[in-house]
Amino acid sequence: MAKYVYFFGDGKAEGSAQMKSLLGGKGANLAEMTNLGIPVPPGFTISTEACIHFYKNNEQYPEGLIEEIESNLKRLEGLLKKGFGDGNNPLLVSVRSGAAVSMPGMMDTILNLGLNENTVKGLINKSKNERFAYDSYRRFIQMFSDVVLGVEHEFFEKLIEGNKKSLKVKLDTELNKEALKELVISYKKLVKEKKGFDFPDDPRKQLKMAINSVFESWNNQRAITYRNLHNMPHDLGTAVNVQAMVFGNMGNTSGTGVCFTRDPATGENKFYGEYLMNAQGEDVVAGIRTPQTIEHLKLDMPDNYGELVKIYQKLEKHYKDMQDLEFTIEEGKLYLLQTRTGARTAMAAVKIAVDMVNEGLIDKNTALLRIKPEQLDQLLHPTIDPKEKLNVIAKGLPASPGAAVGKVVFNSQKAIEVGQKGGKVILVRRETSPEDVGGMAESQGILTATGGMTSHAAVVGRGMGKCCVVGCNDLAIREGEGLFSVNGVIVKENDVITLNGTTGEVILGAATLIEPQLTGEFKVLIGWADSIRRLAIRTNADTPYDAKVARDFGAEGIGLCRTEHMFFGADRIPIVRRMIVADNKEDRQKELDKLLPMQKSDFKGIFKVMENLPVTIRLLDPPLHEFLPNTDEEIKKMAKDLSVDVRVLKDKVNSLHEFNPMLGHRGCRLGITYPEIYEMQVQAIFEAACELAKEGQYIIPEVMIPLVGHINELKFTKDSVIKVAERTMSKYGVKLEYMIGTMIEVPRAAITADEIAKEAEFFSFGTNDLTQMTFGFSRDDAGKFLPFYIANGILERDPFVAIDQAGVGQLIKIAVQKGRSVRPKLKVGICGEHGGEPQSVEFCHKVGLDYVSCSPFRVPIARLAASHAVLKEKA
Amino acid sequence: MAKYVYFFGDGKAEGSAQMKSLLGGKGANLAEMTNLGIPVPPGFTISTEACIHFYKNNEQYPEGLIEEIESNLKRLEGLLKKGFGDGNNPLLVSVRSGAAVSMPGMMDTILNLGLNENTVKGLINKSKNERFAYDSYRRFIQMFSDVVLGVEHEFFEKLIEGNKKSLKVKLDTELNKEALKELVISYKKLVKEKKGFDFPDDPRKQLKMAINSVFESWNNQRAITYRNLHNMPHDLGTAVNVQAMVFGNMGNTSGTGVCFTRDPATGENKFYGEYLMNAQGEDVVAGIRTPQTIEHLKLDMPDNYGELVKIYQKLEKHYKDMQDLEFTIEEGKLYLLQTRTGARTAMAAVKIAVDMVNEGLIDKNTALLRIKPEQLDQLLHPTIDPKEKLNVIAKGLPASPGAAVGKVVFNSQKAIEVGQKGGKVILVRRETSPEDVGGMAESQGILTATGGMTSHAAVVGRGMGKCCVVGCNDLAIREGEGLFSVNGVIVKENDVITLNGTTGEVILGAATLIEPQLTGEFKVLIGWADSIRRLAIRTNADTPYDAKVARDFGAEGIGLCRTEHMFFGADRIPIVRRMIVADNKEDRQKELDKLLPMQKSDFKGIFKVMENLPVTIRLLDPPLHEFLPNTDEEIKKMAKDLSVDVRVLKDKVNSLHEFNPMLGHRGCRLGITYPEIYEMQVQAIFEAACELAKEGQYIIPEVMIPLVGHINELKFTKDSVIKVAERTMSKYGVKLEYMIGTMIEVPRAAITADEIAKEAEFFSFGTNDLTQMTFGFSRDDAGKFLPFYIANGILERDPFVAIDQAGVGQLIKIAVQKGRSVRPKLKVGICGEHGGEPQSVEFCHKVGLDYVSCSPFRVPIARLAASHAVLKEKA
Repeated sequence: MAKYVYFFGDGKAEGSAQMKSLLGGKGANLAEMTNLGIPVPPGFTISTEACIHFYKNNEQYPEGLIEEIESNLKRLEGLLKKGFGDGNNPLLVSVRSGAAVSMPGMMDTILNLGLNENTVKGLINKSKNERFAYDSYRRFIQMFSDVVLGVEHEFFEKLIEGNKKSLKVKLDTELNKEALKELVISYKKLVKEKKGFDFPDDPRKQLKMAINSVFESWNNQRAITYRNLHNMPHDLGTAVNVQAMVFGNMGNTSGTGVCFTRDPATGENKFYGEYLMNAQGEDVVAGIRTPQTIEHLKLDMPDNYGELVKIYQKLEKHYKDMQDLEFTIEEGKLYLLQTRTGARTAMAAVKIAVDMVNEGLIDKNTALLRIKPEQLDQLLHPTIDPKEKLNVIAKGLPASPGAAVGKVVFNSQKAIEVGQKGGKVILVRRETSPEDVGGMAESQGILTATGGMTSHAAVVGRGMGKCCVVGCNDLAIREGEGLFSVNGVIVKENDVITLNGTTGEVILGAATLIEPQLTGEFKVLIGWADSIRRLAIRTNADTPYDAKVARDFGAEGIGLCRTEHMFFGADRIPIVRRMIVADNKEDRQKELDKLLPMQKSDFKGIFKVMENLPVTIRLLDPPLHEFLPNTDEEIKKMAKDLSVDVRVLKDKVNSLHEFNPMLGHRGCRLGITYPEIYEMQVQAIFEAACELAKEGQYIIPEVMIPLVGHINELKFTKDSVIKVAERTMSKYGVKLEYMIGTMIEVPRAAITADEIAKEAEFFSFGTNDLTQMTFGFSRDDAGKFLPFYIANGILERDPFVAIDQAGVGQLIKIAVQKGRSVRPKLKVGICGEHGGEPQSVEFCHKVGLDYVSCSPFRVPIARLAASHAVLKEKA
Repeated sequence: MAKYVYFFGDGKAEGSAQMKSLLGGKGANLAEMTNLGIPVPPGFTISTEACIHFYKNNEQYPEGLIEEIESNLKRLEGLLKKGFGDGNNPLLVSVRSGAAVSMPGMMDTILNLGLNENTVKGLINKSKNERFAYDSYRRFIQMFSDVVLGVEHEFFEKLIEGNKKSLKVKLDTELNKEALKELVISYKKLVKEKKGFDFPDDPRKQLKMAINSVFESWNNQRAITYRNLHNMPHDLGTAVNVQAMVFGNMGNTSGTGVCFTRDPATGENKFYGEYLMNAQGEDVVAGIRTPQTIEHLKLDMPDNYGELVKIYQKLEKHYKDMQDLEFTIEEGKLYLLQTRTGARTAMAAVKIAVDMVNEGLIDKNTALLRIKPEQLDQLLHPTIDPKEKLNVIAKGLPASPGAAVGKVVFNSQKAIEVGQKGGKVILVRRETSPEDVGGMAESQGILTATGGMTSHAAVVGRGMGKCCVVGCNDLAIREGEGLFSVNGVIVKENDVITLNGTTGEVILGAATLIEPQLTGEFKVLIGWADSIRRLAIRTNADTPYDAKVARDFGAEGIGLCRTEHMFFGADRIPIVRRMIVADNKEDRQKELDKLLPMQKSDFKGIFKVMENLPVTIRLLDPPLHEFLPNTDEEIKKMAKDLSVDVRVLKDKVNSLHEFNPMLGHRGCRLGITYPEIYEMQVQAIFEAACELAKEGQYIIPEVMIPLVGHINELKFTKDSVIKVAERTMSKYGVKLEYMIGTMIEVPRAAITADEIAKEAEFFSFGTNDLTQMTFGFSRDDAGKFLPFYIANGILERDPFVAIDQAGVGQLIKIAVQKGRSVRPKLKVGICGEHGGEPQSVEFCHKVGLDYVSCSPFRVPIARLAASHAVLKEKA
C-alpha cells in the first residue's frame, strides 16, 4: 500500500531535506533537523501525493490515509505521553500547509488544534494558568473559524472590541481570564450564527477539517492565478504538517527565545540572542517584558544553555552558515522550533563570509555567493537605525538607496538657498526636470509624486548617490499653499521628514541615521570578486566629481558621459537658450562658439580623473525644449534676459513642444538636423584630448551617437564626427586613437544590428530607452499601472529595474549576435540603469557583453554581481 | 583594341536596349529606337567602361578613345553632311550624362555644343534667324560655363537682368538680337574674369571638356552621398551621349510637336497631340503661340504626318503601351527625339489597359500591372483641374487624397455651425484631437500645422475619405486674431482656400474641382484583380456609414473597429467623463451601465451592415485623458456640467496627465486596471450579436485586445472577456462562435509572439504603433525631422506611409513565424494605416498574412495591390 504520511520525532525522521517535492519545503526541513539529532517537537507530514489524489478523486482521501494519520497520531501520543483530546494531558498540534514552492494564497498556520471545553481543562492543569489556556482557546477558535470555516476575522475583532470597551481596557493583553472565557462563548455563538452549525469540538474532526482546508487552499483563486502567471504546473499539490505544540509558558522551568549563531548586526563570531522565562514566542517579540540576553540563560538554565550551545555549533557546521534559531523550553526540556539561515546586515554578511573562509568552513567562491550584491548598497549609504520606531506616512518607489532627513521644500530655488547655507532639506516635487539638478545637489534627498525607477529624479538621484523616493502616487502637492497632503496627513514646508530610499518609505519626523563604513573585510571580498569576474565595470558619470567617486569605487572607465547635464550650469543655460532660439545657423554658431571652451574644460576635467581609462562620451541627447522654460512667467523672464520679444519666444517654445518627447526630436535626430551642435561637441572632445595628449596624458575618446535606429543616421553623423576629429587633431598636430560607436536603444537598431555594426566600432545598450520602446512604456507614466502589474504578477519585476530577459533581453541577444556577425571584435557594453542591477549584470555576462556601466554608487555591486555571473555559469 | 564608343544613326545602332550597363539607360534607348528604323538624330555613346578607366587611371582617357570619338564625329559629319566647327554648315551636338540608374547630382544636358563666333554665322545662315542663333549661343555659353566651368548661374542672370533693365523690358524673350549679341560678349568677359582664361572657342576642346565634366559628375559629393545612402556600388561609372542637334525653327518646312498614341486624359484610342511649325520644343511648352492639334499636321505636312502615324503605331506595338513622343521636323525631315511610356490619368490608365487586353495587345496580368494601385485614388476623390493656374502658398504632407475648397475656420465648433447650414469650410488647426471629429466631419478638408502621416487628423481624414493636409510646418496659426500666416501670406477666417490632399499643396482661392467617376472598365479590371489575389481585404470602420462605404468598395469584413470613437458622441461624452472622474468602481460602473445600451446599438448597426462577414472589434485603446478637456476654461465648464468641484476635477485631470501618452496608460493597461470598462464593452458586443442571432443573422465577433506586450496581459484580459461573453450568451440562450485575439503593435509582442500565440486566436499588426515604437518616432512629432530625413535620403520613404521592411517588417516576419510555430492556423492580418499602401500590401502578401485592413477609400487600392503581389511573386 502507498505511504502518504511521514513521521518525524525522537531523533529520527522518515523524510529528509532531499524530499521537498514529496514533503514540501517545511516538512522536508523539519525532517532534516530531526535526523540531525536536534530536539524538535515531533509530528508528521502528509505528503503532496495525498493532495494530488484528493484532487484527482473528487476530493476523496486515498485509501488508508485516515488510518495512517491515526497511527501517526498514536505514535505522537506515545512519544509525548499525551492524548489527543485527553482532558487531563491533552496533545495539541499545529497544522501548516507546505508546498515545494511557497506561494501567496496558501493556508496560514493553525495553532493549538485539539482544544475544546474538555481539553482546555487539561491545559489549565498543565500550565497552571487559566488565562493563558483560555486565551489559547479563543485564539484557536478565531484562527480556525477564519481559515477553515471562512468566518471573517473582523467579526471576531468586533467582539473583542466590545469586550474591551465594557472593561475599559485598551490592549488584548489586559483582558482577564473571565473576559476571555466569555469571549470563547460569544465566539462560538458567532460561528453558529454565521455557519448554522456548532463550532466543531471533536479534535479529530478539527484535524480533518484543517487538513481538507490545506488541500483546498492549493486550488483557491489566488494560488491558481499565481501559478498561471508564473507558468507553474497545477498538479504538484501541497503537503500538510501536523506538529505537536510545545509551550514555554508553563512555569519557571519553561521559556522561549530567539538566537543567532553570530552577531547579525556586526558579524562578530559570538553567540547572540534573547529569551524570556515563562513566556511564549510572541511575548519576546511583543516587548512587554524585557528579554534577557542569551548569556544569562547560563545562569537560569545551565543545562539547557549548554545543550543550546552545542546545537547552535552543530547547526552552523551542518549548514555552513550563520543560523537564526527559535527555541522553547517546556518544563526543562529544550525544543528547537526552527533553524534557518539568519538575516544579517550587509556589514555582518561580509564579515561572516570572509571569517568563514578564514575558518576553513567555506571557500572563497561560496563566500562571494553568500553576499547578495544588492546588499552592498547598505555599506555605501546611511541607513535608518533598525531599532527606531517610525511613523511611515506613505510609500513610493525606492529609486535611490540610503536614508535622508531634512526639512521639506517644494522648489529647487529654495533647496539651493537653504542647502548652500548648510541647511538640510528634502526636495519634494511632482516630478523633477533637468532644471532641478542644482536643487537636487543641495538636498539630502528627493521625493517625487510621479515617475518610475528610471524617471529623471531616479536617474539623477542614483547618479549623485542621493537618497530618492519617486512615484509616491498618494502625494498631493499644493506648492501654492506650501504643503503636501498624503493619506490624510498634512506636511508643511519646513516640517522635517525622513526618506528611506531602500524601501521607498516616507517617514514623518527625523529618524536616527547610521553612517556607512567600508570595512577591511569588504576590501578582501571585493578583491576576490575582481579576481574572477570577466565583465569590465565602468561608470556613468558626467562630472569630474562623479568620475572620482566611481574610480574610488573601482570603476574601470566611463561608459556613459552625458553631455547635456553640462548644459544646465548657471553660466551655460542662457547661452544654450540663445543657441536654441536662434533663427539661423550663423546665430546658432555664435552661441556654440561660446559653449565650446566650457565643454572643452568639462571634458578635460573628466579625462584627467580617468587617466589611462576609456571614456565614452554621448553627444547631446534630449530634445531642445528640455532646456527651455514652460510657464508663461518663466518665458517672460527668459525673454527679458535674452532681450527677445516675448511673443517670438513663445512661438519658438510652442514650436518645440512635443506630444511624446521620448519619441521626439532628440538624439542623433538633433545631430542630423543641427549638425553644428554635434560638431561643437566633437571639437571640444578632441581639443581637450589633444591638449592633454600634449601634456603626456593617454586618452582614447569614444564618441557615442545616441538614438540611432537606421544605419544611415549613423553614417551621416559619423562622417561629420570624423571630419571634425581629423581637423582638430591636425590643428594640434596630435594623432589620437579614437572610436565612434552608437547606443543601441531603439528596437530597430537591435533588429538591424548587422547593418549598424558595419559603421559602429562599439555598441552600448541604452536599456532605459530600449525598455521603454520595447514595452511601449513611458518611464515617467508607467507608475499608473506598473505597481498594479507587479502586485498582480502580470510582470514579475519592474523592467526598468531588472532587464526583461524574455523581451528586451532577446533584442540584446539578437543585436550582439548580429553585430558580431559582421564585426567579430565589436566592443559591446550596457550603459542603461540596469548596468548596476545584479540580475541584469548576470544576464549581460551570459550574452557576452564586454562591460557594464552603472552609476558610481553601484560600481561595487556590479563588481560583485559580475563575479556571481562567473560562479553561476560554472555551477 | 577595346571598343569604347557606340554609334547610332541612319537606321542602325551598335547598341540596343539590352546594353544598359554599358551604355547607360539613355544611350541604350537611343540605340533601340534607331534599330527599330525610327528616324532619330544620329550620335554616339561613350561607354561606362571609358568612365571606369578614367577613374582607375588618374583621370586619363583609355588609349584610343580620342581616336574613336574623332572617327565617330567624322561618321556623324558624313551622315549629316555638316562639319563640327564648320562656319557655313556647322554640326552642333548635345552632350548628356547617362548612367545605368539615374541619380541626383549627375551632370545636366549641354545643348548647342560646337557654337563659337564662326559657327554661329553658319547657324544664322541655315536658320535665317539671327536672334535665334545668338540666343542659342548665349544659352550655350551660360550652360557650359555653369556645368563645365563652375561659374555660377546667378552671375549670368545678373547680366541679363541689367540688360533687360536698360532696355526696359521684362521677359528674356523680349531681348532683341543686338541685346543678345552684346550679352554673348559680356558673358565671355565674365568667364575670363572668374576663371582667368578665355571661354573655349574650339568645338573639340568644348567637347572634351564636356565629356570630362560628365565623367567627373559621377564622383561629385551629391552622387557619392546618394550612392552611399542607397548602398550602390561606386564603380559602375556613367556613359556620355553625344547627339546631333536638330532644329524645328528653320522655316516653314520645319516644326516641332509632342504627341500621345492614345488620349492621356480619357484613354480613348486615338492619336492625340499638338505641334507648332517653325518652332523649337520649348515654344510648344511656353504657350506663346497657340499650338495646332496633331490632326492639322495632315494639312501642313501631309507626308510627315503620314510618316508620324506609321511611327506611332509601330512604337505602340513595339512597346505594347501608350507612348509619349517628341518629334522635330527640320526642313521637311522628321526626327523622333524621344519615345517613352506616356503619363496618363488614372481613368485613362484603366481604359487603356482594359482596351489593350480586348485588342489582344497584352494579357490581363499585364493590364493589372499597368495600373499603379495608388493611381486609383484619383478615381475615388475629386481632383483639381490640371489646366488651372494655382497660387500655391504652402506645402504640407499629403495625408488624405483628393481636393477640397472652402472657407477657413479655426475650430470645430465653427466648422459644425457653418457646415450644418450647408456652408463649405476647411478646418485649419495646429493639430486635431478626438474632440474635433465632429468638426472634421462637417468640413470639406482639414489642414494642420503639425503631425505626420499617421497623426490624428491624417488617420481620421483618410477614414472619412476626406481631403487632408497635415504637418504644414510653415503655418503660424493665430486663432485669437482669426488668421494664419504662411510664408508671408496672411489668410483670414472665411478666406477661401483649396487643399490638394494628393500633393500636400495649400492653394489660395478656389480651384476648379473635377468630380470622380467609376467607369465600367474599372469594374472589369478590379474583377480581374479579385480573381487572382490571395489576401483578403478588410476595412477599418467605426460606424455603420463607413462600413457601408467600404463594403460598397469591396471590403470583405472589418479588420479594425475602434470603439473609442463611439465615446465622443455628444450624448456620450458627458457620461464618459463622469465615468473617468468617478472615485470608485461603483460610481464608474453606474456610468458604464448607461453607456452599455449605446455601445450595443453601435455594434448592432455595424454588424447589420457587415452581415455574414467577420468584424474585429478593438476594445478601448486611448488613454483616458484624451476624453477630458485641457484648458482651465473647459475644465470649469465641465465641472459645472458634471456638478463637481473644479479643484477636484483639476486634480483628476492633472493626475491623468501623461508625459508620453503614446507610451502611457492605454490599451489593455486600462483594461487591466479598470476591468469594468472592457467588461461593459464585451457585454455590449455579445448582447448585440446575440440579439441579431435571434433574428437569424450570422455573426462571428472577433474581440481584439490592444497594446499587449506580455503574455500575462493577454491572459488577464482574455479571462475576463470569456467570462462576460459566456455569461451574456447564456443569458440570451445563444451559442455563438467567437474569437479572442490581439494587436501586435508593441515590439515586445512581436519578439515573444510564440508565447502570445498560445493565448491569441488571431494577430492583427497595428503597424502605426509598431512603427512608432520600433523607430522610437512619435507620429505626432516626427514632422520636425522626417521631411529632412527623406529629403536627404536617410530614409527612402516615410515609414508611417510604407512599412519599413528592413526594420518593422523584420518584426512582422518574426512574429508571423513564431506565432504560427505554436498555432499553425493562426489568423494574421494588419490593421495599421499601411494596410492600404500598395508596397506594404505586397509585403504583407509575401510574409504570409491572411488579410489587410484599410480605410474604406483605400479598399480598391488594396484589392489591386494584392493582385500585383501575386503577379510579382510569379515573375
